Amino acid sequence: MARMIKPLNNVYEQLRRLPGIGSKTALRLAYHIIDLPESDVMRLAEALVTAKKNVHLCEECYNFADSTKCSVCTDQERDQSLICVVEQPQDVMAMERSNGYKGLYHVLHGALSPLDGIGPDDIRIKELVKRLQGSTVKEIIVATNSNVEGEATATYIAQILQPLNVQVSRIAHGLPVGGDLEYADEITLARALENRRKLF
Amino acid sequence: MARMIKPLNNVYEQLRRLPGIGSKTALRLAYHIIDLPESDVMRLAEALVTAKKNVHLCEECYNFADSTKCSVCTDQERDQSLICVVEQPQDVMAMERSNGYKGLYHVLHGALSPLDGIGPDDIRIKELVKRLQGSTVKEIIVATNSNVEGEATATYIAQILQPLNVQVSRIAHGLPVGGDLEYADEITLARALENRRKLF
Repeated sequence: MARMIKPLNNVYEQLRRLPGIGSKTALRLAYHIIDLPESDVMRLAEALVTAKKNVHLCEECYNFADSTKCSVCTDQERDQSLICVVEQPQDVMAMERSNGYKGLYHVLHGALSPLDGIGPDDIRIKELVKRLQGSTVKEIIVATNSNVEGEATATYIAQILQPLNVQVSRIAHGLPVGGDLEYADEITLARALENRRKLF
Repeated sequence: MARMIKPLNNVYEQLRRLPGIGSKTALRLAYHIIDLPESDVMRLAEALVTAKKNVHLCEECYNFADSTKCSVCTDQERDQSLICVVEQPQDVMAMERSNGYKGLYHVLHGALSPLDGIGPDDIRIKELVKRLQGSTVKEIIVATNSNVEGEATATYIAQILQPLNVQVSRIAHGLPVGGDLEYADEITLARALENRRKLF
């Protein structure tokens, strides 16, 4: 059997390492890229290298930034008394897309996971505590994911922030808006019932 | 709303141009790539550029090759009297994976499609005819896709090769092996009936 030629196979192997790219997609993409004009391939390769070199972490909130501080932290219009704690930079993006939040962020870069050996010192919790000392922040909204690791992280943060004079809240979980009750999973449904609000 | 920082957005835009990569996948990949070690990103970018620079078309069959001829054409063990005509280089790979074919290939790089302005001169049909002149090839197996364009291409090739003393056959279409009859689409089923073989 004739095998894939080496340069093509290299592209395939590199693409296959990306998350969510299986062997069929990697193959399809590899063939597509070889067929692109050379200028397009150069542009793609350059975008990757440039991004890796120029994207840093914001020294304030640890979100991705192209200078020392990110665009949220430098925006004086944002509510400086509110910090939303998320696991990853892409969570910041998701929150921003909702257009419903005008405060600051703090990106943990992970969640507590004793089974994977990830403790409080492996994510940016210390940095959060330090950030709060002597600050005017009034409320911390913990928006970590609603899986075991995210919940454990939320609980840990609530405990560690207790001595500081700051309110800690958790983002609401319940039925997704527009979702039918009959298609909701049991855990979401149980949580939605538990967190019910009084109407009158 | 805080927007994505430019270097990250560049990666996102470049990835989104790839086939089958929607905006969510592109975003996920962009964030993943920024989080990779710099050496991994360099390796990916280099693989792309190197492949684009070093992959050429085989001067014999127009398959992808890293030298003037591809590995199938240079392999003297292959049956030189048989040529399988396919639309794309990835079709060669699919045929090779089946391990059921030991002849040579001819890659058209497309299929006839009058609606898209693709005529016989836009794909490598002339090169096939030229290749057959004075050759020892006995049979051409046309394995273009079974859509309108692929069928039109197969018919055209059969007609144009008629004057030459070579047998032209079409790859079989029918029920996929292992597929249940009840799930087969009508066109495949009709084709499978039409092409039935005598058992005794």
